[in-house]
Amino acid sequence: MKIARFSNGGDPMFGILDEETDELIVLEGDPMFAGYQTTGERVPLSDAKLLAPVIPRSKVISVALNYPLAAGLDEQARDEPLLVLKPNTSVIGPGEAIRLPEVQGRIVHEAELAIVIGRIAKQVTRERALDAVFGYTVANDVTALDQMLADGQWARGKGYDTFCPVGPVIETELDPAELGIRTSVDGEAREGGNTRDMRFDIADLIVAASDVWTLLPGDLILTGAPAFGELSAGRRVEVSVEGIGTLSNPVRARD
Amino acid sequence: MKIARFSNGGDPMFGILDEETDELIVLEGDPMFAGYQTTGERVPLSDAKLLAPVIPRSKVISVALNYPLAAGLDEQARDEPLLVLKPNTSVIGPGEAIRLPEVQGRIVHEAELAIVIGRIAKQVTRERALDAVFGYTVANDVTALDQMLADGQWARGKGYDTFCPVGPVIETELDPAELGIRTSVDGEAREGGNTRDMRFDIADLIVAASDVWTLLPGDLILTGAPAFGELSAGRRVEVSVEGIGTLSNPVRARD
Repeated sequence: MKIARFSNGGDPMFGILDEETDELIVLEGDPMFAGYQTTGERVPLSDAKLLAPVIPRSKVISVALNYPLAAGLDEQARDEPLLVLKPNTSVIGPGEAIRLPEVQGRIVHEAELAIVIGRIAKQVTRERALDAVFGYTVANDVTALDQMLADGQWARGKGYDTFCPVGPVIETELDPAELGIRTSVDGEAREGGNTRDMRFDIADLIVAASDVWTLLPGDLILTGAPAFGELSAGRRVEVSVEGIGTLSNPVRARD
Repeated sequence: MKIARFSNGGDPMFGILDEETDELIVLEGDPMFAGYQTTGERVPLSDAKLLAPVIPRSKVISVALNYPLAAGLDEQARDEPLLVLKPNTSVIGPGEAIRLPEVQGRIVHEAELAIVIGRIAKQVTRERALDAVFGYTVANDVTALDQMLADGQWARGKGYDTFCPVGPVIETELDPAELGIRTSVDGEAREGGNTRDMRFDIADLIVAASDVWTLLPGDLILTGAPAFGELSAGRRVEVSVEGIGTLSNPVRARD
């Protein structure tokens, strides 16, 4: 099922995407907490402004170096995932502008499969790890790459406002084992990848993250990027994960 | 004014500490949002369980290397503050146990003055920076030091559940320029410091943090530790900042 958070003029609402009619079946509340009771109303997708499908109450966890391609940044083989944090203030939705601060060096897109946590999870076992998953969405783990490397710590370079576009929907029924990941800039394809090449799989990542932090409903785990490429103001970046959809954001300079 | 968040059996409440009578003057709501209207009720401090005086909606920012003493960790002089993130799930209140995970090497206490942000702040100027301050509290920036250094990224070593005790109160009227910072473990004094030795002052830190992230009411900025020392299970650590109070937490092994 594909869940959207959207507005058609008023307060944000949640809906189930009916892909046959291109309509949103309106839900009574946030299905993460309130289940799937419908109001009976339907909103044409064309009348809806899609919003970030989730606003994390606590954490966006970004997994670094989870695909072989990133080896140039850190040759050291690790026996556990390297986890960093992006703040919830970096989250934006489909169509919202990524705002580039004035920094030295490259700012890059990183197309990633994102895990949406649906229940409290603390020190979970591998066997129980997937119970914590509400669904999956697409994220663009925007990164001020050269500034981040110069800083040493990645909190700043990965954390700027607007540096975490997510959406367009949360897919609640998805096998994440082998999904194509694609990126394009102004319609031109960039390097892609496939989730089958992850070093640490979804269960591994939830085990590792929940060993450090209590995961809360709405927390996101960005599972790592198979590739990255430079962004500049005036362009539009689209990142897709097979089975979920395409997240499209214009890129602008920061005011 | 010293603001406490507390419970005396029921839901959390906010109160102003009357230091002459050792009572809490109960407030209608969270003064950060609802102002200082009182209910007329008073609760003896001895009947109140103090809670973390603020639960950040978004970010706990930890400033690294903001005192000369920390130079051993990074000799490189920086012309701007090094900022890292702790998640809100690491926050605990006075008296709650710091839970030590099983990690390689030292886990340390770091007594720090913490800024409590009171209003939305984004790319503020130095002149306007202090307008964003609601008050100040005491924080213990607990850190799995050796693990953190081995990780390279500090998100894990600084982010474990319970690694951010804060309290006992928020002081809303305080000049932070020259305040003694003290730590004791089981009543025995450890190395202390004074806020006058900060490399970057309060306004600098707010300018730097708000340049990266939109600061939200309730966000905390831990301003750096003048000293650190090892913790072990079974002890009690007390950290104090002059003019605010003493934050005391037992230390236990994680379950």
